Amino acid sequence: MNTAAIVVAAGEGRRIGGCCKALLDLNGRELIRYSLDLFEASELIDGIFAVVHPDFLTRFEKEFAAQWGYRKIIAWVEGGERRQDSVAAALMRVPEEVSLIAVHDAARPLVTEDLLRRLVYSGRAHGAAVPVVEVVDTIKELDAAGRIVRTLPRERLRAVQTPQVFEASLLRRAYRSAAEREIAVTDDASLIEALGHAVAAVEGSIENIKITVPEDMERGELILRRRGLRIKQRQ
Amino acid sequence: MNTAAIVVAAGEGRRIGGCCKALLDLNGRELIRYSLDLFEASELIDGIFAVVHPDFLTRFEKEFAAQWGYRKIIAWVEGGERRQDSVAAALMRVPEEVSLIAVHDAARPLVTEDLLRRLVYSGRAHGAAVPVVEVVDTIKELDAAGRIVRTLPRERLRAVQTPQVFEASLLRRAYRSAAEREIAVTDDASLIEALGHAVAAVEGSIENIKITVPEDMERGELILRRRGLRIKQRQ
Repeated sequence: MNTAAIVVAAGEGRRIGGCCKALLDLNGRELIRYSLDLFEASELIDGIFAVVHPDFLTRFEKEFAAQWGYRKIIAWVEGGERRQDSVAAALMRVPEEVSLIAVHDAARPLVTEDLLRRLVYSGRAHGAAVPVVEVVDTIKELDAAGRIVRTLPRERLRAVQTPQVFEASLLRRAYRSAAEREIAVTDDASLIEALGHAVAAVEGSIENIKITVPEDMERGELILRRRGLRIKQRQ
Repeated sequence: MNTAAIVVAAGEGRRIGGCCKALLDLNGRELIRYSLDLFEASELIDGIFAVVHPDFLTRFEKEFAAQWGYRKIIAWVEGGERRQDSVAAALMRVPEEVSLIAVHDAARPLVTEDLLRRLVYSGRAHGAAVPVVEVVDTIKELDAAGRIVRTLPRERLRAVQTPQVFEASLLRRAYRSAAEREIAVTDDASLIEALGHAVAAVEGSIENIKITVPEDMERGELILRRRGLRIKQRQ
């Protein structure tokens, strides 16, 4: 096994009113399955480690695993408190022989093979690669008291998505260092940056949305419908 | 006249494939009309200054003005090169007696009376008030060469929307100062901040989306449909 995918799906989805975000119904299919489908079908990925909410671990292992039949899933992993704890738990299960790891949030079901490919190539070339898109809104920074301190230079800002692709040894080093220094982050690349290692920015996709609030499910369905139309038009 | 609204609608909408973004059809109504409808109906606003693309100014003045019949529109203003040039052009037309100005992008058609009210109150109280929402994505900053430099502290970031509400004298001073110092900005509050004046942050709405790419029109229609349902359920 050369390249592994860690699918982070341990969120409760509090903002979306669910008890297990990974199982939300998007167009008749569980949210997590979009990411699993992609990695299962892609020649770029050899094995999958799916991190799920502790309350549902047994159901995933016993019930869904058999029902869905993904052949590349190596392990269902018990998620931690924070996102980074979940990734750390999965990293413990990834075998030493793996040289490249793609970390992906199941909350981004609409990622494509094309984007994955560009990230894998860039990750191999640079050690760390993340998909980014331009920021549409003006972004301001608050101080600790909630007052607006300044406006950030929008042309220099990028919103970061997943999958984020890393050399396995670099990602392991970053997570060890984060544990020692107790760094809290919202994405894995931040830990690589904290090591002083460069992270390559790859052009992401505005269709690679993150499902956070109920409206995002409708947006996801719109994008799926549009893709279906595009495929029909090509046929 | 006490409170004026400046509706900025001079964009070409290049990313959305239109030649005049203000006239894009959202659910059977021109984009700009959603903002005009709100201000026309609101007791909070006494007069409207609509800034439109120079190529369409005559059509707005002659054709649409009569056809739409808004009574509060004081002037159709010729837009400038950048957004801030458009606002500056409108400011020249706002009478001295006006004490409060709401600057709003027509690209945000789904703003509500409730949000407008909270901003007007806060603007009166603090001199400057803007609607903000939490940032969902991790945001990174690039250097001039396009390399990722750092990850910004997401809990301290806010995406800023419009309408932004200002004391008229403060906004005029900010625009004079910006012209002298040749500051380029993406929102009006940045100019207030550049004066060293505090800007109050008011909780915005995730439904107050900015129409930028074609997908946003579909999102806008979804939100309108949901609002229609909510109104029906209340009846």
